[in-house]
Amino acid sequence: MSAVEPLSFGPVEPAVDALRELLGERLSTATAVREHHGHDESGWPVMPPDAVAFPQSTEEVAEVARICHAHRVPIIPYGTGTAVEGHVQALHGGVAVDLSGMNRVRRVSTDDMDATVEAGVTRKQLNAELRDTGLFFPVDPGADASIGGMVSTRASGTNAVRYGTMADNLLSLTVVLVDGRVVRTGGRARKSSAGYDLTHLFTGAEGTLGLVTEITLRLHGLPEATSAAICAFPDEDAAVRTVIETIQCGVHMARMELMDALQMRATNAYSGLDYPERPHLFLEFHGSESGVREQAELVQALAAENGGADFAWAVYEEDRSRLWQARHDAYPAALQLRPGCRPLTTDVCVPISRLAECIRETRRDLEALPMPSTILGHVGDGNFHVIILCDPDSEDEIARAKAVNEGIVYRAQDMEGTCTGEHGIGQGKIAYLRREHGEGVSVMQAVKDALDPLGLMNPGKVLPPRA
Amino acid sequence: MSAVEPLSFGPVEPAVDALRELLGERLSTATAVREHHGHDESGWPVMPPDAVAFPQSTEEVAEVARICHAHRVPIIPYGTGTAVEGHVQALHGGVAVDLSGMNRVRRVSTDDMDATVEAGVTRKQLNAELRDTGLFFPVDPGADASIGGMVSTRASGTNAVRYGTMADNLLSLTVVLVDGRVVRTGGRARKSSAGYDLTHLFTGAEGTLGLVTEITLRLHGLPEATSAAICAFPDEDAAVRTVIETIQCGVHMARMELMDALQMRATNAYSGLDYPERPHLFLEFHGSESGVREQAELVQALAAENGGADFAWAVYEEDRSRLWQARHDAYPAALQLRPGCRPLTTDVCVPISRLAECIRETRRDLEALPMPSTILGHVGDGNFHVIILCDPDSEDEIARAKAVNEGIVYRAQDMEGTCTGEHGIGQGKIAYLRREHGEGVSVMQAVKDALDPLGLMNPGKVLPPRA
Repeated sequence: MSAVEPLSFGPVEPAVDALRELLGERLSTATAVREHHGHDESGWPVMPPDAVAFPQSTEEVAEVARICHAHRVPIIPYGTGTAVEGHVQALHGGVAVDLSGMNRVRRVSTDDMDATVEAGVTRKQLNAELRDTGLFFPVDPGADASIGGMVSTRASGTNAVRYGTMADNLLSLTVVLVDGRVVRTGGRARKSSAGYDLTHLFTGAEGTLGLVTEITLRLHGLPEATSAAICAFPDEDAAVRTVIETIQCGVHMARMELMDALQMRATNAYSGLDYPERPHLFLEFHGSESGVREQAELVQALAAENGGADFAWAVYEEDRSRLWQARHDAYPAALQLRPGCRPLTTDVCVPISRLAECIRETRRDLEALPMPSTILGHVGDGNFHVIILCDPDSEDEIARAKAVNEGIVYRAQDMEGTCTGEHGIGQGKIAYLRREHGEGVSVMQAVKDALDPLGLMNPGKVLPPRA
Repeated sequence: MSAVEPLSFGPVEPAVDALRELLGERLSTATAVREHHGHDESGWPVMPPDAVAFPQSTEEVAEVARICHAHRVPIIPYGTGTAVEGHVQALHGGVAVDLSGMNRVRRVSTDDMDATVEAGVTRKQLNAELRDTGLFFPVDPGADASIGGMVSTRASGTNAVRYGTMADNLLSLTVVLVDGRVVRTGGRARKSSAGYDLTHLFTGAEGTLGLVTEITLRLHGLPEATSAAICAFPDEDAAVRTVIETIQCGVHMARMELMDALQMRATNAYSGLDYPERPHLFLEFHGSESGVREQAELVQALAAENGGADFAWAVYEEDRSRLWQARHDAYPAALQLRPGCRPLTTDVCVPISRLAECIRETRRDLEALPMPSTILGHVGDGNFHVIILCDPDSEDEIARAKAVNEGIVYRAQDMEGTCTGEHGIGQGKIAYLRREHGEGVSVMQAVKDALDPLGLMNPGKVLPPRA
């Protein structure tokens, strides 16, 4: 279909020479550097790039792209390496473009409640720089990911239920195209009907359409009042019913997270806590003093009807930080349940009305496995994750975990949900894209061919091989 | 650039014959029908299509597209004809596809707070069908537009300041491509990271990339309490300052609309009201009883500091309906200021911090004109409209109005705003797209070529002629 035979790349050496001339010591071919850039936090095997470039400006990124394009060498954008579906592996070699040196917050407007940041700024760095403004950036995927990476995976996390995902919090992007042209996708108006929506086209494209180098974001006012709590339930079903009823009552929750009983055991051990080893909801409320009180009372009543008890409140900021740190550490905590294991994670999202059923059937799948696994997630969005802890030397365990993962994906898709709520496709979900999007995949491929006809941008990710 | 020479269309007669075979009496070539479909509500000249098709299903739309594609005949989607930038004129002839017969609400889920509708369902019809559910669809551009048309122009309107624009309220679209292939862009999950964002790609594309035939929308719970008011100000600046301060205080307004003094005179006359002929804000608050009270008190205090007085409250629904009907009738009301006039409207959006300055300078431009004009708009978003009432026989007036329009657009763009906040590009704003998007226009053109290589979909709209 493509004008050019796909995946016919050029030799990398002349590109590396030209890049070294451009960047000097900011071009590395050291083995350790290459291997570090050859994997994310998933279990996908390391595939190091041939070289790693560390540009410091959009203009340098454009020059890097021009050189790689001229030599037909793959280009793989790299943020913090915290993706979990095999997003950054250099499957066909090429040059990783590490954007961590582009870490300046370029402007903040408290009047317009927006900011422009370079792609390598991390979410914690941004919020630290916003500390005295009364504003914050809410999207929180757990890891201290780069904002550019969060754009590229269409990330969300714990408080998307109130503040939306990355896609909902963007005003515009600066993107370097494969041939070095630079596009700014919009201005700073809150809304625009001017032409095709390029901002959302590059968001979630995982670096396969271009390199995101700058982002203009919406910020939000810090809530007047914040309150957080965790609450134990007799079983997952009761916890999930409470979530569904809360959402359906129109309570504007800030966060609404589930952790199952085994995940609680792991979290207690990892974070030095002693919560009951039962399914818990982690909750946070934002609003005015009276609004937070109203919401909290309503949710407590709904929880009580479902057998939820022992609300442990965290009113002070340090208590809340500890609570959410424990939630964010769920992944490393789970890994400690089986030291040395190979984790297989998944991430699906379904309409909220199907969530209880989806988790119930997933639990049944997991109970049939001989190895440990946990369920946790952003259930207020209908989004949950499963972590299955495999013996890395057991082909049988890995095969069974993959089969269960596939079953979970199919179930979510059959419930009009999605194979990934927030992690992205990477390598891990490519096999499911066509089942979810059908003819839409050919539209995606046509767009890919239009913007990257040589197939140089992060090859082997997102789009399945052509039929 | 395109693989095929652009705008080389085939003869229309064989396509019309095939369409008549498919649709029988639902294919019309009557002059009155063609002329009705050859214009929107703007002043752009009537350009009738050669025929009008009235399909009743996605499958029929696909068949219409296949026939037109086979004969290389332009395809122009048509909803209610309420666009205002010359969106539906058949500039190169061809077939208008009138989707008003696709007017079924296919499903509503109160549990998931979403609905799937055919493209011809209008927003008032949808809200009438939702009446007993406790839910509503908030996007309200004034006109009783079709949902499909609202998707295609990325419409918004009075309460986008709280509930977002069309782009923020979509879960998925069903789209017929130019060759008759049918794509569903997503499922019903609240969020997804599965592949390129096709939903937003087709949103705001004005029918130039495909025909939107079905839409899955987010719905919202009716607020527990609603209160509306209008308030007079000594001058526009005071009104706009009140808006800016309200937004910056984080008050979650439902609606926040400006009408200038002359627009108030027009509205009084058209709607039988007797408000002072001074600039007014039209306000609406949604929330809990206590929340609405809190917000209203804060905004009243901010207004008072800026000289705003005489809050006229509309607490009962019928009073509110009358108030918002008057707002929605602003356009026909303005036209009556100069019966028989040719209106020239514009629609820009700027960061809220620049809004006062932008309106002040626009006022200066308008005062230099010999003909009447009004300013009004969704100022909570930084979005406002200007209506200039020209003598249709005066080339001088029309030329001067166009020059002022261009000045307003340039000013908004120079303030990091946009040439259109919600009306779209159509024919009217094509000249400004490149100034706003630069190299982005070539990305849009590449996408257009990829999805519509023969240039059949609504030709002559959105994208400028190639350089």
